[in-house]
Amino acid sequence: MFAEPETAAPAMTAVLTAVLTEGPLSRVGLARRLGLSQAAVTKAARPLIDLGYLQELAPTERTGPGAGRPASPLSIRADREFFLGVKITADELIGVVCDLSAQVRASAHRPLTHRDVEHVLTELTHLTNSLLDEGGYRARTRRLGLAISGDVDRGTGLVRYSPFLHWHDVALRELAEAATGLTVVVENDVKALTTAEHWFGEGVGAESFALVTVGTGIGCGLVVNGRLVSGSHGVAGEIGHIGVDVNGPACHCGGRGCVEAIAGADAIVERARRLSGHSELTFDGAVALARAGDQRVGAVFTQAGDAIGCAIAAVANLVGPARIVVSGEGLAAYDLFETPIRTGFERQAFGAAAACPLSIRPLPFEQWARGAATVGIQAFVAA
Amino acid sequence: MFAEPETAAPAMTAVLTAVLTEGPLSRVGLARRLGLSQAAVTKAARPLIDLGYLQELAPTERTGPGAGRPASPLSIRADREFFLGVKITADELIGVVCDLSAQVRASAHRPLTHRDVEHVLTELTHLTNSLLDEGGYRARTRRLGLAISGDVDRGTGLVRYSPFLHWHDVALRELAEAATGLTVVVENDVKALTTAEHWFGEGVGAESFALVTVGTGIGCGLVVNGRLVSGSHGVAGEIGHIGVDVNGPACHCGGRGCVEAIAGADAIVERARRLSGHSELTFDGAVALARAGDQRVGAVFTQAGDAIGCAIAAVANLVGPARIVVSGEGLAAYDLFETPIRTGFERQAFGAAAACPLSIRPLPFEQWARGAATVGIQAFVAA
Ligand SMILES: [Zn+2]
Ligand SMILES: [Zn+2]
Repeated sequence: MFAEPETAAPAMTAVLTAVLTEGPLSRVGLARRLGLSQAAVTKAARPLIDLGYLQELAPTERTGPGAGRPASPLSIRADREFFLGVKITADELIGVVCDLSAQVRASAHRPLTHRDVEHVLTELTHLTNSLLDEGGYRARTRRLGLAISGDVDRGTGLVRYSPFLHWHDVALRELAEAATGLTVVVENDVKALTTAEHWFGEGVGAESFALVTVGTGIGCGLVVNGRLVSGSHGVAGEIGHIGVDVNGPACHCGGRGCVEAIAGADAIVERARRLSGHSELTFDGAVALARAGDQRVGAVFTQAGDAIGCAIAAVANLVGPARIVVSGEGLAAYDLFETPIRTGFERQAFGAAAACPLSIRPLPFEQWARGAATVGIQAFVAA
Repeated sequence: MFAEPETAAPAMTAVLTAVLTEGPLSRVGLARRLGLSQAAVTKAARPLIDLGYLQELAPTERTGPGAGRPASPLSIRADREFFLGVKITADELIGVVCDLSAQVRASAHRPLTHRDVEHVLTELTHLTNSLLDEGGYRARTRRLGLAISGDVDRGTGLVRYSPFLHWHDVALRELAEAATGLTVVVENDVKALTTAEHWFGEGVGAESFALVTVGTGIGCGLVVNGRLVSGSHGVAGEIGHIGVDVNGPACHCGGRGCVEAIAGADAIVERARRLSGHSELTFDGAVALARAGDQRVGAVFTQAGDAIGCAIAAVANLVGPARIVVSGEGLAAYDLFETPIRTGFERQAFGAAAACPLSIRPLPFEQWARGAATVGIQAFVAA
């Protein structure tokens, strides 16, 4: 990303990443943190300061014996560059503008009336143009991150399969770059959210970290040994198809007693309809019945939460993340899920794995779009 | 390990590791493989050759346009140094001498009549002395790896808890170093085996890799993003307590329907006794009945294998290892396990995760001891 000799690039990336994710750091602190010499840090920081991405804060006094001249911590100039992020769902586009520190500066929605690629690209272009023009962000925005559920190849920008949009092998990066004129990166939505939490949220500094999303499907993003897990065969984080009940319901994947066949939104609605006798019941209707004290429908949510908790315990038992965030659109009903998720988790977490903190919280759609923007920030920093 | 400037050590470790695990490599190939300059490789290789750990093979002809002078691949001098490995079980010690390439050169067993620490140390000293003296290995052996099941802190050499030996907080490294005069490293036995497979077995070159052991307990070692997973809270690879049957039997861990409560040796014996009516049946007796066509006892092994396969699918769905090796002492009966393990795995592996190859094979106890020696080799290379 900079007109610098190639050998300096890794040090620049390391310095920028550290200041971005961990906050203001002195050159001495950076050198210690990154295992570099202080000279190497100073050399790597120079062009970042010259280009306006880093700034020197006022010197902090250093006292005591051996104190040298005061250290000037380096910090991010968050408004040096902006990043667009858009989450694509079956019904709408949710877009945000973030600054370099992944703070959301503006957001907007646009409904989708069809799911064909051309319509989505047209609406995407409208959305990005209005976000960039209304806030005056255009001059300092070059990158757009797109988050979409399904099988996405970030390397090539190809959407191999998106079940909700019925897309197969769509070269989304290429098409979106042509439509918007921006540099585009495309990522699976759960991985994008995981990246956001790893760089700017509860996962900062963690060697291992997991994010579980509860909604139509049950997904999981994993960071292990400091890096996102992508799976040697293209599959990773598929917590939704862990089998937790060998005698349980059949799953669309061919499995039996998968978490998703018990706790996915469709499975919950179907069971709630059967048990309540209301054949037209919606997910929101089921939530309302459970909240109103309907014990049969309440038990559907309890069983669903327990299955999710049991699968989260499998994650903790296998990879031992420092912490696990549980979130997602299904957690709009998180008052019904939280207790059974914790019950299932505590029962199946083995020994010290039970010490892994669970953050269970709802997640607005803007946060998914922020995840998309974060992937753009990450691509920029690595470039 | 070498009297070299500190900055050269990482390159030396990288060069030695690559030649050790991937076989003979030219300096050009090493430079490409490690992302180092050829000068850095030559500099790092020099002391390794001088000290006798690496040797230059006869030059191979290079032909075609642009061919320079012939390349002399670097290879390991396997007999430059030997490593002891000992697996400690409740009943016996199994020891091996390995060369630098982890080839077993000699092996020996010693029964344990008690489980107290002093007795184990006395027998360990006898075992290591006889192995070193009988083969003439003493002069070139400095390191001993110990593998033991349970909660082991490799960093401090402390055995926090060993259920089979009833040990709590035993400073085994320190005690074994005093007893044997060797440099000792202590590791959990499943992790030691995983290291052996990762460096010298089916996991060579894999970014991610899993080893599942079936026996008294069901264990798992995981390599993700190139490194062994150790777990932020001290727990990882606890595949045995993944819940696969929410209505299944209670487990000693407090969980319900854990793999170990269905497929651990004790669980199998207990169910086989109940179903066959033979209250004195042993594990081997149950195997014999199943092999002789007893359908009720056969079903116990089928159910156990299915539970193991289902949990292995959870590993594949979550982290997507390049391959999974299933092994262990319980797999002495692997003719009874193999088919149901594959059935359970194929049912619950999601999409492309089913493409992950499973190697299902028995594992002699010497291989556990070799795993212990491998940990010693790894410690030597990293030092
Ligand atoms: Zn499924
Ligand atoms: Zn258990």
